[in-house]
Amino acid sequence: MTEADLKYLFSPRHVAVVGASHREGKIGYTVMKNIIDSGYNGKVYPVNPKGGEILGKKVYRDILSINGSVDLALIIVPASIAVNAVEECAKKAVKFAIVITSGFSEIGNIDAEREMVKKAREHGMRILGPNVFGLYSASAPINATFGPSKVRPGNIAVISQSGALGIAMIGKTAEENMGLSTIVSIGNKADITEADIMSYVFNDDITKVIFLYIEGLENGRELMELVKKKPDNMKIVAIKAGKSKVGARAVASHTGSLAGSDKIFDAAFKQAGILRAESLEDGFNWVATLAACPKPAGKNVVIITNGGGIGVLAADACEKYGVGLMNDMEVLNKTFGDVIPKFGSYKNPVDLTGQAGGDDYKEALEKALNEEDIHAIIALYCQTDMTPLEPLKNTFREMQRKYGNRKPIIYSLFGGEGTDKIIEELKGDGIPAFYDVEDAVSSLNALYKAHEDGKKEKRESLDIDESRIKKVIENVAGDGRTQLLGTEAKEVMVAVGLDVPPFKVVKNIEHAVNTAEEIGYPVVMKVISEDIVHKTDIGGVLLDIDNEKEVIEGYEAIIRNCRQYAPNANIRGVEIAKMVPDGVETIVGITTDPSFGKVMMFGLGGIYVEVLKDVVFRVAPVSKREISKMVREINSYSLLTGVRGESRKDIDSVIDTIYRIGILADKFPEISELDINPLVVYEKGAKVLDARISIEVKK
Amino acid sequence: MTEADLKYLFSPRHVAVVGASHREGKIGYTVMKNIIDSGYNGKVYPVNPKGGEILGKKVYRDILSINGSVDLALIIVPASIAVNAVEECAKKAVKFAIVITSGFSEIGNIDAEREMVKKAREHGMRILGPNVFGLYSASAPINATFGPSKVRPGNIAVISQSGALGIAMIGKTAEENMGLSTIVSIGNKADITEADIMSYVFNDDITKVIFLYIEGLENGRELMELVKKKPDNMKIVAIKAGKSKVGARAVASHTGSLAGSDKIFDAAFKQAGILRAESLEDGFNWVATLAACPKPAGKNVVIITNGGGIGVLAADACEKYGVGLMNDMEVLNKTFGDVIPKFGSYKNPVDLTGQAGGDDYKEALEKALNEEDIHAIIALYCQTDMTPLEPLKNTFREMQRKYGNRKPIIYSLFGGEGTDKIIEELKGDGIPAFYDVEDAVSSLNALYKAHEDGKKEKRESLDIDESRIKKVIENVAGDGRTQLLGTEAKEVMVAVGLDVPPFKVVKNIEHAVNTAEEIGYPVVMKVISEDIVHKTDIGGVLLDIDNEKEVIEGYEAIIRNCRQYAPNANIRGVEIAKMVPDGVETIVGITTDPSFGKVMMFGLGGIYVEVLKDVVFRVAPVSKREISKMVREINSYSLLTGVRGESRKDIDSVIDTIYRIGILADKFPEISELDINPLVVYEKGAKVLDARISIEVKK
Repeated sequence: MTEADLKYLFSPRHVAVVGASHREGKIGYTVMKNIIDSGYNGKVYPVNPKGGEILGKKVYRDILSINGSVDLALIIVPASIAVNAVEECAKKAVKFAIVITSGFSEIGNIDAEREMVKKAREHGMRILGPNVFGLYSASAPINATFGPSKVRPGNIAVISQSGALGIAMIGKTAEENMGLSTIVSIGNKADITEADIMSYVFNDDITKVIFLYIEGLENGRELMELVKKKPDNMKIVAIKAGKSKVGARAVASHTGSLAGSDKIFDAAFKQAGILRAESLEDGFNWVATLAACPKPAGKNVVIITNGGGIGVLAADACEKYGVGLMNDMEVLNKTFGDVIPKFGSYKNPVDLTGQAGGDDYKEALEKALNEEDIHAIIALYCQTDMTPLEPLKNTFREMQRKYGNRKPIIYSLFGGEGTDKIIEELKGDGIPAFYDVEDAVSSLNALYKAHEDGKKEKRESLDIDESRIKKVIENVAGDGRTQLLGTEAKEVMVAVGLDVPPFKVVKNIEHAVNTAEEIGYPVVMKVISEDIVHKTDIGGVLLDIDNEKEVIEGYEAIIRNCRQYAPNANIRGVEIAKMVPDGVETIVGITTDPSFGKVMMFGLGGIYVEVLKDVVFRVAPVSKREISKMVREINSYSLLTGVRGESRKDIDSVIDTIYRIGILADKFPEISELDINPLVVYEKGAKVLDARISIEVKK
Repeated sequence: MTEADLKYLFSPRHVAVVGASHREGKIGYTVMKNIIDSGYNGKVYPVNPKGGEILGKKVYRDILSINGSVDLALIIVPASIAVNAVEECAKKAVKFAIVITSGFSEIGNIDAEREMVKKAREHGMRILGPNVFGLYSASAPINATFGPSKVRPGNIAVISQSGALGIAMIGKTAEENMGLSTIVSIGNKADITEADIMSYVFNDDITKVIFLYIEGLENGRELMELVKKKPDNMKIVAIKAGKSKVGARAVASHTGSLAGSDKIFDAAFKQAGILRAESLEDGFNWVATLAACPKPAGKNVVIITNGGGIGVLAADACEKYGVGLMNDMEVLNKTFGDVIPKFGSYKNPVDLTGQAGGDDYKEALEKALNEEDIHAIIALYCQTDMTPLEPLKNTFREMQRKYGNRKPIIYSLFGGEGTDKIIEELKGDGIPAFYDVEDAVSSLNALYKAHEDGKKEKRESLDIDESRIKKVIENVAGDGRTQLLGTEAKEVMVAVGLDVPPFKVVKNIEHAVNTAEEIGYPVVMKVISEDIVHKTDIGGVLLDIDNEKEVIEGYEAIIRNCRQYAPNANIRGVEIAKMVPDGVETIVGITTDPSFGKVMMFGLGGIYVEVLKDVVFRVAPVSKREISKMVREINSYSLLTGVRGESRKDIDSVIDTIYRIGILADKFPEISELDINPLVVYEKGAKVLDARISIEVKK
């Protein structure tokens, strides 16, 4: 199904309301009234077996008796007869049915829902719902919902997974003077999905910002793929409810145990370029700002204020959010030197003092807006008794008209009734205005984040020895195991192209001595057995073996220890590996998220991962540029760049390792969990000392 | 000056307005009008040499010609004649003058300000200001400000360091339907200070919550001492503007370099039981909630909602803020089992479903309010078309009337115009109501924080060898040094009662050998010289010396290295100290903050302090209970409780060490900086391996 298919859902030429009601207060009446009040200019056919008239429109006893074509039918009849109603619409060649009626799969009534879709599809009709509040679309225009009748047309599309919240949002957007291109809920998703709706909205030529409310996401990866198709200048703000941690999962890796679904949502949204708001208020503020403001040309923000106090609060908030304040004193002096009264300040925050009125704001704003080196403006106003409010409002409006499409200007007005009224009026004009300075700064920060360079990066092609990996995995699966032996995991690492210190499995003392000499001392010896998990604890691992004598004694000790502590373990031999010097220990991993699929993790090893949980996630596969961002996100990053006199470590090697592991995850989806722990990083290069891999074999 | 002294400032029997104006729009007119409009029932005497009448009141040509006593004079005349006006008021035996006039110390005109206070004091008159907006006091009642005239009386005192923001706050509080006991700014603080105002407000029998806006704090410690005197049931919310980091200071300690003034503000406010809000919006929300709600009897919060979506958002916010959701299914079932309709849920969040109206809310709320095991309620409403709003509002009001003084109930109502109007009305009735669920949860969290057990704890008396410490410090000061030698610092540590491994300074090889044997191997050897800072780097420190031979070689090597790399250094000898086993390295420190004085720091040593900055601060002295909280606040705390199979470390020893260092800081204020680095913590005990102390000798 392509996007174009939904055209007549959003711009129906004629509509029928099946289950239209004569009684005020009924949903079937409200929907009729909203359609008529919204200025819909197609024909509206109420359908009700009782006949008569509703709101001046002739009522048809059934859909088939309507003379003329119908693009969209609203279904509001009881669930028991809804399937029939849908079938009749389909027979009438209606293109879309919005099934407002509830009582289907959401209460276990799955069969009727399937039946309904089947009947519709037989005649090529598509269904939105069931269990939805209807649809508002500015392009028609039509308000075919049973929510509030007042909706402002505009460029924001609201897509809600929750019908209840969706209805409340219609009211809230009107209250906030926010203009909508559409508001729609998906309900039970029997047929049309969020993906269908979003694909349409991406190309509807009206929508500038999408406000998404998500409660659950069965297939997060699909959403990420979908969002890649949005036009660059369209922005998405999402609220994801339900951040509580996932229940305990039985996972064999650190990566798996550290991945709470919410951390992965965060990472995935960031990767997809979706701004995640934590609260409805932030969401509304950000959406309004993104809809109103152009992309800032640079990082230089200027705060213009009439009060020192709120100026400092705004500067504090800028520091908190990482919004960059312009501090080139020469530019500031040149721009504001003449505007500032005695006792004012042209330092940023630029203080016009409590005396400033509309003209002073106008002069300062206009100079700032015309100065190339100033890229965005936060204008603050703290109510005084000196300043009449009307000229101020007119100034702000004028600035928006003249400069609003070239530079972002965000307002915060603090005071009593008069200021709150201005805020409301400015919002109505599509000007971002708030009472709290923090909201203004947080919104400007969202604007910057939304416009962060999201250039798509091509993936390098890499030679990895796929057939060798395949062989290892087949062998493990053939044994009926889900966990690779340490040596098998290392073999996969070699095949991926990573640097693994030389190792070999030996089964007797002589072979051990020869191998150690071949590899070169010092070496590490480790028992190989799928039955012994905590190898170090029982004396199954020996470090720093320096000569033949130590190899012999070590081999005997390992076997003795294992026999004693794990008498029934299947001992496959002893691994002899090259002992490597100390470096910075890191961990690189893969886990499988139920919604997003393969997910990558990176962090520093040991205490950093185990105690401080200082790790970051990304949904795989990840571009090298994204990986380099990911690596910098850990708190302990400076341990890689060199602290306390240590040299800088080879961060490129880390990035390359994560990149290769991402490719592995992509090519071998049967790898469900993986830990490289540790990946030891040196001034030059990084070595895989140990790896653990779990596979999940499809039956 | 005691609190009672300000009685007639807040409850003046009769007032004079010196500089009253006949012209609308002038400050001298607005103040007159506000006083009259506020229902002030004492006499109001306008004073203006022009005479005549203002707003129906006879105008006096000068203050002395008023017949009858005046408690309070508002001074609004130009700065050039204000000193005279003040003097005349003083002569007339006016008790208080509020000098609204500006143009004094804030623009460098310090002499006139001093003169004004001197004249006033000569006659026992006290001054608020100059450079203030006046004063509103509900106890009079009187609105003697030039701000908005509409002020609601109530139980919130607003004290603002900024006049501009103060005026805007008058408007905002009215807009938010917030009731004030007083609103006042301090201006230039020529005479009456915040401390005076707060001391009065602590005992004014009206105020329940103080909302403090602070821009700078010259003496933070004074504020902390003052706040100790507040009644237990009075709460303080503060906004501190200006969080940017202090500029680079030349400090010799880690503790000093890690202390940004804002971190210390955070710590100090927490210690004093002041809630710090980051934004004006949070501040207003919290203050409204603290003013309206009683102390919750326990941690069990129940969310009651009519929409799953906002319920989940609220639960998310509870997790974020650490607000505890009641999850005893038995109690929940018992309480809500009968109330919940089909498809609803009595699990927390309790979902009444979209059908719920006023009666359903009433039943659910009343049951929850009567259930002993439920301690606080967050009631959410998501606007539907099903629920008429009026009964809902009446229910919420009734619940507040019947139960509001026994249990906290906080509302969040999300939707359009109707809901926003209810929020406003509920606020007017002193019911905490917000549109965003996050605001509701954040406010409930503030309520919990405000009522956290603030029991005062007596300080233990401790034996520390003060005379020995005094001798060391005198000796250092006598040398003209500000930095103690390592051995001197260790001697102080011993005198404080801490466990310092045996050490001695030697000046020749023979003495070195004898000392090492006396102390017992292994030992550590370290050069003692104030001229060599990086002793390890130049080979001035040797670890793990095991026998006589190594002592001899070591001694020679140290002397040789120092001669070579620091030929001009004054070498005072070599320290021989007992080498101790590895443990968890921590750092304990003192620094001197310009506003709060002595401040304590604690953290884990090495990378934790240097890279991760994982440290916590408290203003000294600190009680043991507060120290035990402090220690738990570091992110790496679990390294002390034992991770990765390590045993639990002796946290009591850490607490005792910090406590003793706090006493040291208190008794020897000349110690400006101190680092114990590391304090090595064992399963039993903790040892001071190295200490660094700077002193500042008063001249």
